[in-house]
Amino acid sequence: MTQEQQKTPHDLPDVTGLKIGILGGTGDQGGGLARRFALAGHEVIIGSRKAERAQQAADALGEGLPVRGAENHAAASEADVVIVAVPWDGHKATLESLRAELAGKIVVDCVNPMGFDKQGAFPLPVEEGSAAQQAAAVLTESRVVAAFHHVSAKLLLDPEVDEMELDVLVLGDDRDATDLVRGLAARIPGMRGIYGGRLRNAHQVEAFTANLISINRRYKAHAGLRITDV
Amino acid sequence: MTQEQQKTPHDLPDVTGLKIGILGGTGDQGGGLARRFALAGHEVIIGSRKAERAQQAADALGEGLPVRGAENHAAASEADVVIVAVPWDGHKATLESLRAELAGKIVVDCVNPMGFDKQGAFPLPVEEGSAAQQAAAVLTESRVVAAFHHVSAKLLLDPEVDEMELDVLVLGDDRDATDLVRGLAARIPGMRGIYGGRLRNAHQVEAFTANLISINRRYKAHAGLRITDV
Repeated sequence: MTQEQQKTPHDLPDVTGLKIGILGGTGDQGGGLARRFALAGHEVIIGSRKAERAQQAADALGEGLPVRGAENHAAASEADVVIVAVPWDGHKATLESLRAELAGKIVVDCVNPMGFDKQGAFPLPVEEGSAAQQAAAVLTESRVVAAFHHVSAKLLLDPEVDEMELDVLVLGDDRDATDLVRGLAARIPGMRGIYGGRLRNAHQVEAFTANLISINRRYKAHAGLRITDV
Repeated sequence: MTQEQQKTPHDLPDVTGLKIGILGGTGDQGGGLARRFALAGHEVIIGSRKAERAQQAADALGEGLPVRGAENHAAASEADVVIVAVPWDGHKATLESLRAELAGKIVVDCVNPMGFDKQGAFPLPVEEGSAAQQAAAVLTESRVVAAFHHVSAKLLLDPEVDEMELDVLVLGDDRDATDLVRGLAARIPGMRGIYGGRLRNAHQVEAFTANLISINRRYKAHAGLRITDV
């Protein structure tokens, strides 16, 4: 074969060895992702405002995993890819404080701006359209991707759960960056990373978390999405 | 057993014999649903502004199916359950003109307010929040449910396709109404009707159609959703 093999939409880049930083890794979603990426062999740095709390969160994930804690600035500087899993409340301020450290990097936003009342969860309006678009507006020198919105923190952290039957929708305007994040999603057994559109279509993916919460409540489930025919 | 069996979230009411009206049944999505419900044994009335066009659309679905065409007002009056599959452009005006006929009935909105440009599809803003909420605001005497947003018209109309691997998200504030529409979804082989939340969470389900269009383009697929763990 002298011709290069045709690239298909299912091809994934090799992401082995990438060092992953997780801002907000002291929360359940961030901690759960940290655990799964560490289990897959990635070096993971949990970031928090205080290094000590970050290290406690890393220790809580169990012994023998390649996870450590650091202050947010250090986690952002040292990692190759940075996942943003901070509470929506502090989203914009945290990112503004890390613009320099995140410049040139792939930043994966998985934040769901959500409110709760007696009737359950509902999406909060976001001036920029979505958390991911807010990240892109703040981090003009980074490659912002949206992904991992619908992964159940409970399942990520559950030592009895070896596989997660779930497709991670990966959104962004930079093809190579979304492909790389699709590759990261595929590192977690059972998960696929499926391209889900441009950043301008991130709002409904974030907001859909409210529907999954309703589904979980009605069916007593940890619901996720699969995309059929793909 | 003297005690009544506990009702589970998977229980479905018997919807056999329900007569289904489809406003906008001359379009692909409405026509496709008409075809599938007729194949499942339901009497279907396709509605259009002109009875003649409606009858042509009914005839186009093939011989031997229990589908006929009628003017919108007649379709709305005669049906037990009415599906709204009109273009977003005429959505509000059509419903306003049918308030009396639709009073007391279950009205199933499956309209996706969508715009298109060079970068693909994107959700249009809706003053009421979503097409379904607009329907509820107009049809104050009806029981409005949102469902069937993500079914591929092409697959619905394809005579080679016997089963559609797809979960239909059914949203609404009236439990009995959403259960009945879940029962209707289950009449189409391969489909499940899954409760997906209240009407206030319909926007992101409608808008998610833009993401499915992006997915279809990238993967050359007719993508649908499955909800896992349910």
